[in-house]
Amino acid sequence: MLANEEMKALLGDSRLHERITTAEEAASWIEDGMTVGLSGFTRAGEPKAVPFALANRAKQEPLKLNIITGASLGSDVDRVLAEAGIVRRRLPYQSDDVMRQKINRGEILYIDQHLSHTAEWIREGVLPPIDVAIVEALAVTEEGLVIPTTSVGNTSLFVQRARHVILEINTAQPRALYGIHDVYEVGERGARKPIPLVNPSDRIGLPGIPVDPDKIVAVVFTHQPDSPSPITAPDAVTDQIAANILQFLRNEVAAGRLTPRLAPLQAGIGSVANAVLYGLMHSEFHDLEFYSEVLQDAVFDLIDAGKVVFASASAITLTEKKMQEVFRDFDAYRNRLLLRPQEISNHPEIVRRLGLISINTALEADIYGNVNSTHVRGTRMMNGIGGSGDFARNARLAIFVTKSIAQKGAVSRIVPFVSHVDHTEHDVDVLVTEYGYADLRGLAPIERAPLIIERCAHPDYRPLLMEYYREALKRGGHTPHVLEKALSFHLAYERNGSMRTAAGTGVIGR
Amino acid sequence: MLANEEMKALLGDSRLHERITTAEEAASWIEDGMTVGLSGFTRAGEPKAVPFALANRAKQEPLKLNIITGASLGSDVDRVLAEAGIVRRRLPYQSDDVMRQKINRGEILYIDQHLSHTAEWIREGVLPPIDVAIVEALAVTEEGLVIPTTSVGNTSLFVQRARHVILEINTAQPRALYGIHDVYEVGERGARKPIPLVNPSDRIGLPGIPVDPDKIVAVVFTHQPDSPSPITAPDAVTDQIAANILQFLRNEVAAGRLTPRLAPLQAGIGSVANAVLYGLMHSEFHDLEFYSEVLQDAVFDLIDAGKVVFASASAITLTEKKMQEVFRDFDAYRNRLLLRPQEISNHPEIVRRLGLISINTALEADIYGNVNSTHVRGTRMMNGIGGSGDFARNARLAIFVTKSIAQKGAVSRIVPFVSHVDHTEHDVDVLVTEYGYADLRGLAPIERAPLIIERCAHPDYRPLLMEYYREALKRGGHTPHVLEKALSFHLAYERNGSMRTAAGTGVIGR
Ligand SMILES: CC(C)(COP(=O)(O)OP(=O)(O)OC[C@H]1O[C@@H](n2cnc3c(N)ncnc32)[C@H](O)[C@@H]1OP(=O)(O)O)[C@@H](O)C(=O)NCCC(=O)NCCS
Ligand SMILES: CC(C)(COP(=O)(O)OP(=O)(O)OC[C@H]1O[C@@H](n2cnc3c(N)ncnc32)[C@H](O)[C@@H]1OP(=O)(O)O)[C@@H](O)C(=O)NCCC(=O)NCCS
Repeated sequence: MLANEEMKALLGDSRLHERITTAEEAASWIEDGMTVGLSGFTRAGEPKAVPFALANRAKQEPLKLNIITGASLGSDVDRVLAEAGIVRRRLPYQSDDVMRQKINRGEILYIDQHLSHTAEWIREGVLPPIDVAIVEALAVTEEGLVIPTTSVGNTSLFVQRARHVILEINTAQPRALYGIHDVYEVGERGARKPIPLVNPSDRIGLPGIPVDPDKIVAVVFTHQPDSPSPITAPDAVTDQIAANILQFLRNEVAAGRLTPRLAPLQAGIGSVANAVLYGLMHSEFHDLEFYSEVLQDAVFDLIDAGKVVFASASAITLTEKKMQEVFRDFDAYRNRLLLRPQEISNHPEIVRRLGLISINTALEADIYGNVNSTHVRGTRMMNGIGGSGDFARNARLAIFVTKSIAQKGAVSRIVPFVSHVDHTEHDVDVLVTEYGYADLRGLAPIERAPLIIERCAHPDYRPLLMEYYREALKRGGHTPHVLEKALSFHLAYERNGSMRTAAGTGVIGR
Repeated sequence: MLANEEMKALLGDSRLHERITTAEEAASWIEDGMTVGLSGFTRAGEPKAVPFALANRAKQEPLKLNIITGASLGSDVDRVLAEAGIVRRRLPYQSDDVMRQKINRGEILYIDQHLSHTAEWIREGVLPPIDVAIVEALAVTEEGLVIPTTSVGNTSLFVQRARHVILEINTAQPRALYGIHDVYEVGERGARKPIPLVNPSDRIGLPGIPVDPDKIVAVVFTHQPDSPSPITAPDAVTDQIAANILQFLRNEVAAGRLTPRLAPLQAGIGSVANAVLYGLMHSEFHDLEFYSEVLQDAVFDLIDAGKVVFASASAITLTEKKMQEVFRDFDAYRNRLLLRPQEISNHPEIVRRLGLISINTALEADIYGNVNSTHVRGTRMMNGIGGSGDFARNARLAIFVTKSIAQKGAVSRIVPFVSHVDHTEHDVDVLVTEYGYADLRGLAPIERAPLIIERCAHPDYRPLLMEYYREALKRGGHTPHVLEKALSFHLAYERNGSMRTAAGTGVIGR
């Protein structure tokens, strides 16, 4: 394939010009059994051509790969890889429906991992070596830096550690992104220095990923924007959750524990997080900073409104409309943003040092404050823990939000005993639903339970939960439970399609 | 009370001389409803007089206090406070039998907290302000530094934040300890610098705790050594657990993931940890470092044997015999030890940076690798999570050890579903019993379960566990479970006094 001048201009090392090729050709570097690292984080900056070529190839020949990414992939890449039956092992996070089904059938071996940990496992050789990295980029500079696009994720580690690198230069990604990446490598354990980041806005690394050009075996050109983030407009319930969080924060300010500048914020992805951020818009809080994983629409609106002075993350994931607005006028944001490797955006050292206020979503929580973020009824994987543990474990304030019910009320998201624990009672500071918030800090379990039931549970479920709790209290213990009824809510749903039937008479044994 | 010259010599500020008084007088500073911070960490360095005077006073007048410490207290202080009914709220850790009973009857409100977190909550005003700190010390220097004794724990924060400070100068504590403390204050969040510690041996702080002498309202002299650590001699089972850990480490070296110097080690307290450390004695590993919470007998033997080059911790807890040996000949250890605040010994920033190998004990673990360290059958508090979460959450290798059974085999410590989660499947790397080890890293749940059952469970329980797992597999899901039987092992024990009756036919509903 012959490169035109425009293409060549994006490849600062002339040796790369002759490696420009098709996605199919590039994909031929990948062989059955290999471990492949893909760029991409929360649906931003994934490679958009070679994975599809691989899926095509799998129609003709056996192909099973270990797929490691930053986090979830956009552009249906996870879906297509799953459908093609290519994926043997997948880590550390995904959120695709087809892949989810295969994971839950045991057809894909999924390792649900803290997003800051994957890099350590690669560096230390716990995971198999990365054979090939497939990485979306804006360009390779003359200095030999790969410039990522809308996410950094684990890309820098993949590029540095992989035997071979396949680049996808995506000319539809905005050139405006040049300069907003800050690539810092922590180095080997045992020879590490402190990470010199003390403010979310600190630039501590390089504007791109250093690469040995000899490792780049193929360069593919694409022209396709990131798939837009699904629209998650606030509704009355998410607005109320947001209002409750704001009320909590307001009370913290009144108590002298926070100032109106709050502390650097981390907010998970999804409708509730988005609503919370929009809630900040008309609040008294100001000069806010984000130190988060992913920047959604709301952060840019908050910057526009002068509410947010700086936002650091590992990816930008926008709706279609917002993408156009933001990238058309990117100079307005340039000095207010940095994208970092996920190891840095989620690093315990930084999360603890900065003292983040961390807001993530629970699938369910129990009356003692344990949180399940991943497993529906203890067995079926939803997405994965993502970065929620990196943040909650080390934040100043670990806030978990959830709607009080799901499935039109057939499911109470406050239960006696969570069916899976991702965040333990030791790590959950505040629980918030549309009914209120429960500040669990400094409370013993027997103080937490009535508070959570009264403040957070749906009124329809409060009597059932109190009945359970009162029976448990009779049995005693630091954390009272009626073990044979601990999972009765979940079992009631499995048997009768509704947790409402989990009456104190005991659904179990009926 | 008149101070003799020897006493005065230990109080570098002459204003303190007239504050020398009795324990009873000192205790009168403490009033009903107050929050009191006590020095002491894993049974080392707690105040040995004033708490007893308080317990006495409680016979005459109502007295309820919030008691905050470093960790567990020796010299029966927790027991006496519990028996006297003084304790309203207790955090962050305890291990006394009488206090445990009161906690489990709901008479003491216990907040079971990560040991590195308490300092943050004090600093940020989440906990009530410390009214009085009661602190054991060797001396106060002319420079105004309080020199701790055998532990640092949270003492420096207590001294700095408390309104009033009561000092107990314990002349039975070895003067040799001068100079081994390294007191570093991380400061307020939002204005923090990186903690400049990159090797376990780095000295980063002061040799004592800066104090405003005006805050010291009373000085009490005591002469009583720490209560000795209970003897926990290795037995055949703990030796075998130790051997299995060594085998795992050996395999890591063979795989090129570790060198024979390993990585800085953290080991929990107790018989298994002690056995593991003795196992290192005759191993090929050398030039080892510890970055741990507490130093037990074995660490000193390892220093003697030339196996350990440096050990950092927050406390020294020894048996009676070893205490005499170590403190008689302390110069042999002086340059190989540092005692730090528990916030530093357990700090996520350092634990992650140094890449610790962390070895802690589980009460029970489940077939997917979730670990319960605190709650017997999900309800009754044993001790608390202590530092195990601080380490496991951020270590390079989070190893959990447990004997395969308890109660003469009536309890399997490998169960289908743990009755409480302190360490999630995301944070448990390796599980070890006397039967072997299961390296869970990089494995999906359906790979972990058979491995844990085969390698770690007691042979008597393997068929029952496999039966559960096979039935669960039929139901599917990423983490297969049979919800109505998930807690069947625990219920079988409650009903029949043995988990052996948890047959697949389902103990529940019988
Ligand atoms: C927990 C998480 C799945 C919630 O996402 P969400 O979009 O707010 O979830 P919803 O409340 O819309 O629920 C999603 C679905 O699960 C169902 N559901 C929710 N809670 C449920 C429960 N406790 N039991 C059964 N089903 C439940 C809902 O009914 C809904 O089903 P539907 O799609 O058929 O309507 C998501 O936040 C997540 O994956 N978190 C983990 C990763 C993370 O926190 N990352 C943050 C750092 S970026
Ligand atoms: C988990 C922990 C309690 C284990 O301590 P241990 O001394 O090794 O415990 P043992 O195996 O001897 O068991 C203690 C008792 O509990 C019982 N027990 C143990 N496991 C049990 C289980 N799964 N179910 C019921 N009882 C159990 C034992 O039979 C024993 O009872 P006994 O005293 O009547 O004989 C202890 O390590 C701990 O408190 N850990 C948390 C804090 C921590 O890890 N700190 C580390 C950083 S320093």
